[in-house]
Amino acid sequence: MVVGAGPAGLTVGCVLRAAGVDCLVLETETREFVEGRPRAGVIEEPVVRGLERRGLAGNLLERARRDTACEFRFDGERHRFGFHELTGRHHWVYPQQLLVTDLVREYTDVRGGAVRFGVRDVRLHGLDGDRPSVSYVCPESGRREVVGCDFVAGCDGARGVTRAAVAGRARVARHDYGIGWLALLAEAPPSADRVLFGCHPDGFAGQMPRSPEVTRYYLQCPPGDEPENWPHERVWAELRRRLGAAGAEPLTEGRLIEKRVLDMHDYVTEPMAFGRLYLAGDAAHLVAPIAAKGLNLALHDAFALGDALAARLLKGDGTGLAGYSESCLRRVWDYQEFSQWLSELYHGGAGGDPFRAGTALARLRRLFSSPAAAAAFAERYLGTAARY
Amino acid sequence: MVVGAGPAGLTVGCVLRAAGVDCLVLETETREFVEGRPRAGVIEEPVVRGLERRGLAGNLLERARRDTACEFRFDGERHRFGFHELTGRHHWVYPQQLLVTDLVREYTDVRGGAVRFGVRDVRLHGLDGDRPSVSYVCPESGRREVVGCDFVAGCDGARGVTRAAVAGRARVARHDYGIGWLALLAEAPPSADRVLFGCHPDGFAGQMPRSPEVTRYYLQCPPGDEPENWPHERVWAELRRRLGAAGAEPLTEGRLIEKRVLDMHDYVTEPMAFGRLYLAGDAAHLVAPIAAKGLNLALHDAFALGDALAARLLKGDGTGLAGYSESCLRRVWDYQEFSQWLSELYHGGAGGDPFRAGTALARLRRLFSSPAAAAAFAERYLGTAARY
Repeated sequence: MVVGAGPAGLTVGCVLRAAGVDCLVLETETREFVEGRPRAGVIEEPVVRGLERRGLAGNLLERARRDTACEFRFDGERHRFGFHELTGRHHWVYPQQLLVTDLVREYTDVRGGAVRFGVRDVRLHGLDGDRPSVSYVCPESGRREVVGCDFVAGCDGARGVTRAAVAGRARVARHDYGIGWLALLAEAPPSADRVLFGCHPDGFAGQMPRSPEVTRYYLQCPPGDEPENWPHERVWAELRRRLGAAGAEPLTEGRLIEKRVLDMHDYVTEPMAFGRLYLAGDAAHLVAPIAAKGLNLALHDAFALGDALAARLLKGDGTGLAGYSESCLRRVWDYQEFSQWLSELYHGGAGGDPFRAGTALARLRRLFSSPAAAAAFAERYLGTAARY
Repeated sequence: MVVGAGPAGLTVGCVLRAAGVDCLVLETETREFVEGRPRAGVIEEPVVRGLERRGLAGNLLERARRDTACEFRFDGERHRFGFHELTGRHHWVYPQQLLVTDLVREYTDVRGGAVRFGVRDVRLHGLDGDRPSVSYVCPESGRREVVGCDFVAGCDGARGVTRAAVAGRARVARHDYGIGWLALLAEAPPSADRVLFGCHPDGFAGQMPRSPEVTRYYLQCPPGDEPENWPHERVWAELRRRLGAAGAEPLTEGRLIEKRVLDMHDYVTEPMAFGRLYLAGDAAHLVAPIAAKGLNLALHDAFALGDALAARLLKGDGTGLAGYSESCLRRVWDYQEFSQWLSELYHGGAGGDPFRAGTALARLRRLFSSPAAAAAFAERYLGTAARY
C-alpha cells in the first residue's frame, strides 16, 4: 500500500509492479491535479540513472534539457562553472509534473498498478502489527473502504497523513534559514541559456531557463513577505541589479505569470520507519529548495524502499528494509549539510554582517581558485550515487 | 622600521636584511620574553617552504616533527585521516618560541639587523607623508628617541600600537564563535602519537602531542569560563569521555601545568595598508586557534611584505606594495572561512540543536566517504601556496 501519488509513491509502485507485487496507490488529489502541479525540475544524474535502471526514464532521456554549466555572478563579475568539463556529467532539467505524468501512465497503463485518486480522509491502522491496513472514504460512494496490506509506504508529503501518524513517536529536527525566496515565472526568454546565481549584497537572485518563452527567476526577500510588495517594476529593477555583471546580457523583461514567496526551512524525521510504515520523500524530510535537492532525495528514498519491499515480499530478504531508515538518513543529512553550505554562499553577503559577507565571498572565490574545492562542489551539486 | 619582534616582524626584518636594506625592529618586551613565549606550533608546508626559500628554516627542518595523519573521533569510532598518503605533504610542528629564537638570532647575529627590546610608549608619526617616523622611550636612558624611515611594518599583534593607530580609519569585521577552549598542558605522554580531534555531544576535545613528557589538550567550555572550574578530576573525566572511541588507547593522566581559557573570536581589518604603514599578522587580523592558522597567516603576510618592501626600496618597484593589502586579505578571508567551516564540524554536535548536530555529523562523515571532500579538506588543513 502506497499513500501518495507523487514522484516517490509512483516510483515505489512502479518498482513493486515490475517485481510482480500487488500494490494500491491512494491519492487525495485528482489525476489531473497531480499531473499538472508544477514543483521541482532539476534532477541529478545519479537519479536519472536510477530511473533508467528501473525502466522509468524513457521520456525524460528523450526530452529533458541537459545542463553543462552554471554561472555565478558576484563582485560585478561573471564566473562560469563548467561542471560538465570538470566531471563529464550533466544536470538534468525536466519539470516534475511531466515526470509524474510519465510515472502515472507507466504504473497504471503499462504495469497494471491500481490507484485511487481523489480519496478522502485516509487513515492508517495496525502499523505495529503484522497486517496493517489503510482506510479511506471513496469519492464516488462516500463510503469508508478498508484495505489490508503487508506494508505501508508513506509518500504523501509534508502535510500528509503518514507524517501526522508518527508525530508523537518521531524525533523531528528543524532548521529555519530566516529568509524567503520570491519565486517568479516570467513570460520572457532567458537572458542566458544557463542557470545563473547572483550573490549580491542586496540579496540572492537566480535565473533558471524553462523554455524559449518562459523563465523562472528567484529573488531573496524577507520570510513571510507578500507577493504584492513586489510589483513588476521592483522585480525587474532588483533582478537587473542582483544579476548585473560586466559583459552580462541584458535581462529580457516579460509579464510575471507567477509570484509566490517560499520560506526557507528544513526538517528531518528520525527514524523513517515505524512498524510496518516506511516514510519516503517530504513525508520524512523537507529540504529548502536552495540546492534543488528535494525531488532528488525523494527519488533516492523511493528506489531504496521499492527495492527493499520487493526483496522482502518476493525473497523474504528483510535486510533492505532493516537498513532503510539509516541509509536514507545518511543521505538526507548529507544533503541538508550541502543546502546549508550553499545557503551561506548565496545569502551570506546580504545579511548586513561584514564578517559573514567576507567569508561568503571567500567561499565563492574558492570555487574558482581551487580545483579541489570545485571538484568537491561539483560532486554535491550534481549528486552522487555513493553508498551512505 | 618594523614594530614588533614576533614571527612576522622578524621575518620581514630578515628578508630586508638579506636584500641589504637597513632596518630597525622595535619590541616592547625583552628578548628573553619573546624567545620563551609559548604560542602556536603548527606550521603549514607552504609556510615551511617560504621560510626555507628565505634561508630561515634551518633548525625547523632539522628539528620539527612532521605529522602524516590526524584522527577524528566521533560516534564512538576512530577515523584516521591520513593526509600524507593523500597529498604527499606533511604538517609541521615546531613551537613558535623556537622559531622566534631562530629568527632573532638570524636577524641580529647573522644578518646584522638592528633591534631594540624593551622599548616603551612607541608612537607613529607622519604615516601619510613620504618620511614617517617612529618614536619610543629608551629603556636605559628614559629618553624619547625618534627614528625616521621609509616605511613602517606593523607587526605588533592584536594589542599593539600600530593596530591602535588605524582604529579610526580601518573597517573592522568581527566574529564571535560564542565558545571557549580550555587550553591545557599535561605532564604526561600523549595517548596517541598523532593529533586527535574528538567531536562529541558534550563538546570538542583535542590532543596535540608536544614531547614524550608533555601533551597539549583542549576542552570546549563556555566562553569566559574560569580555569578553577576545571579541577584535575573533571578535566580527565571529560577528556576520557570526549576522546573515547572503540579501540582507543587509554589516556595517560598527568599533572596539569597550564590551564587557560581561550575565547574564540576573529577580526579582519580592511585595508591592511595606511599611507606608509603596512600591517601584518595579528595587527591586521585575528583568527581563532580552531584551525591553527594564525601563525601561518602572519608568516604569509610577512613573506609578501618583506618581498614587496625590498622590491620597492632596491628596485623602485612598488607593485608588490600596491597589491599587498588585497592579496593578503584574499588569503585572510579564505582562512577565516575555513576556520568557521571547521568550527561547525568540531562544535556543531555540542550546541544542543539536533539539526546542527545532524549537519555537523554529516560534514564529518563526508570527509571519510568522499575522496573529493577529503582532498578539499586536506588542501585547506595543510595550507596552499596558491596565489590569491
